[in-house]
Amino acid sequence: MQFESLETPALLLDQTRMARNIARLRERLAPMGVTLRPHVKTNKSADVTRELGGPAHPITVSTLKEAEYFLAHGWRDILYAVGVVPSKLPHIDRLVAGGARLSIVLDNVEAACAVAQYCQEHALFLPVLIEIDTDGHRSGVAPEDPLLLDIAAQLPGTPSSGAWLAGVMTHAGESYNCRSQAAIEACAEQERAGAVRAAARLREAGYEAPVVSVGSTPTAHFARSLEGVTEVRAGVYVFFDLVMHGLGVCALDDIALSVLCTVIGHQREKGWLITDAGWMAMSRDRGTSRQAVDQGYGLVCDVDGEPLGELIVADANQEHGVIRHRSDPQATPMLPIGTLLRILPNHACATGAQHDAYHVLRGPDHTVHARWPRLNGWGAL
Amino acid sequence: MQFESLETPALLLDQTRMARNIARLRERLAPMGVTLRPHVKTNKSADVTRELGGPAHPITVSTLKEAEYFLAHGWRDILYAVGVVPSKLPHIDRLVAGGARLSIVLDNVEAACAVAQYCQEHALFLPVLIEIDTDGHRSGVAPEDPLLLDIAAQLPGTPSSGAWLAGVMTHAGESYNCRSQAAIEACAEQERAGAVRAAARLREAGYEAPVVSVGSTPTAHFARSLEGVTEVRAGVYVFFDLVMHGLGVCALDDIALSVLCTVIGHQREKGWLITDAGWMAMSRDRGTSRQAVDQGYGLVCDVDGEPLGELIVADANQEHGVIRHRSDPQATPMLPIGTLLRILPNHACATGAQHDAYHVLRGPDHTVHARWPRLNGWGAL
Repeated sequence: MQFESLETPALLLDQTRMARNIARLRERLAPMGVTLRPHVKTNKSADVTRELGGPAHPITVSTLKEAEYFLAHGWRDILYAVGVVPSKLPHIDRLVAGGARLSIVLDNVEAACAVAQYCQEHALFLPVLIEIDTDGHRSGVAPEDPLLLDIAAQLPGTPSSGAWLAGVMTHAGESYNCRSQAAIEACAEQERAGAVRAAARLREAGYEAPVVSVGSTPTAHFARSLEGVTEVRAGVYVFFDLVMHGLGVCALDDIALSVLCTVIGHQREKGWLITDAGWMAMSRDRGTSRQAVDQGYGLVCDVDGEPLGELIVADANQEHGVIRHRSDPQATPMLPIGTLLRILPNHACATGAQHDAYHVLRGPDHTVHARWPRLNGWGAL
Repeated sequence: MQFESLETPALLLDQTRMARNIARLRERLAPMGVTLRPHVKTNKSADVTRELGGPAHPITVSTLKEAEYFLAHGWRDILYAVGVVPSKLPHIDRLVAGGARLSIVLDNVEAACAVAQYCQEHALFLPVLIEIDTDGHRSGVAPEDPLLLDIAAQLPGTPSSGAWLAGVMTHAGESYNCRSQAAIEACAEQERAGAVRAAARLREAGYEAPVVSVGSTPTAHFARSLEGVTEVRAGVYVFFDLVMHGLGVCALDDIALSVLCTVIGHQREKGWLITDAGWMAMSRDRGTSRQAVDQGYGLVCDVDGEPLGELIVADANQEHGVIRHRSDPQATPMLPIGTLLRILPNHACATGAQHDAYHVLRGPDHTVHARWPRLNGWGAL
């Protein structure tokens, strides 16, 4: 099947670009002595994740639905990387009973107490990572915070029973706001040093805490040292996107995801092309709006994936995209009604989630080799 | 089942509020002699749309997948309100063959020619509305544009055969940017007058063009006259949202949708509550950012749906929401880990689309009476 026969909008995945992206990070990390634990929240697809190494490899998930889905497809070593709350423990327990080797994260005494009590009452073994805040971005305990040891003290498990303090994890979310490679390198070092310091404090206090888990796509690609780190998490690197391009992490022609759309109208006086890919197909993510080059709702390419000069999706309604030249609307070419275009997304995680499947291409030809379904939502499968 | 046992985040729908919203617009329009053709792109659910009157009533859709889904659930009189392109005609043809009385819209000569040719070659009857641009917001032909008659001339059908010029449609998208009720009233009059004028031009040229279709939730609620209009479209009115509240179209306690979430962490020094409803659950829609009161990613309510002072979701990651007091972070109450909260969304269409079902409540008790699935995506069912 040629993608020209897809009903637009439709999500395209260039498998050749994806393979190159996957190989790039794998090869970068291989000599650094760390495990890569991909974050599958970006792709939410067993077919995509199989390309990362298959079910024998560890993964990171952002929801218990992802954990359940990947367990059903054979993955067992799964880190659920969003702070746990007591109400989710029965679902976690079912996944462990179903064969998952699930690890969880938390950053407070209340959750640690509840997890420990649940594990004791249900004879459940759960490795627990304490979330460390290395950049003030989101959740976590600062590396030097006394709270770190208070939380650890609530986790009485052993490496084979109960709620066991397996180590620490952190995410350098601020790396998305960097303006240079040097700034990303500095972020990466701050992420590494904070996590390693927190683990050292735990070890000084007598805990084994073998796991030091760090990661974000920018820091994974530019960290100069990963000394003391045991595993790296990243998700967007598989597809890349315009935000990563704006950060200097990838080239435009590394971006493996695009949204196929059709020109449905013109507003000639305003220099607008109207398409059928609005914010529902692109997502409302405007991540490049804070970067040096604002790509609107996406960068416009021809059917072969080549950028069409300076055309961007400048505005979007639910099912309408407004394409124009980024600085001179009168320079917008009035492409004929029915023209197919491919839009590179700001944020792969957000755009992917608007779709229920990937249409898989291999390089520049237009053949759809496969349709790979993807997961969305929460709760039980 | 009580909603306390749902896994968060989860989408809640207050059926009592929804019924009041539905009755409000129905009662407003009843004496005005127009047909209400709800836009089901907001709810994408047969169960919700049944509450609007059931399959005997006309509806508006934004995708052919919606058309196919609602046809499968019994609806037949369906307006597909996004400019058609030739590649979608075979799908439209299948829907008509399956019993749909489908109308389409277009705003250019190329599409009109292609539709007419397809209808002739396939003995297909399709009512066509020419899209009118009454406010420069998006697609459409200006009411006085000579192009209007050029398009009409391409549509040679009759009221029972071929591509038939059934009339005009317009959408006052700019009404979302109004700052007062008077401004919305002016928008509504501009929308009405432009559509009626375009229809008059067609009739003066000898076309019957019986349909004059207008609509947006703000203008539907504040139009002072609908003279010459035959039908009104609106979608958000069923649920309402913070953007509509900011426009003065509804009260906060009219908003029928909310996202149930759980407090999963604290950043006490910054006055942050971390929850498990990030932008994946709320959508990336920041529609209130252009309004007088910016609600962040949503307004925070307690489990009974009562706003908690001035708490908003100030920032969001994929599966993390950051809640704080909108002006004084130190005034954020450090609610215990595990606390359930309900977040009112900026934009019902966008937040709904992040979920696969509504959990239906009836007023202030916490019982989930039903789980109503909803549609997402594009293409064939």
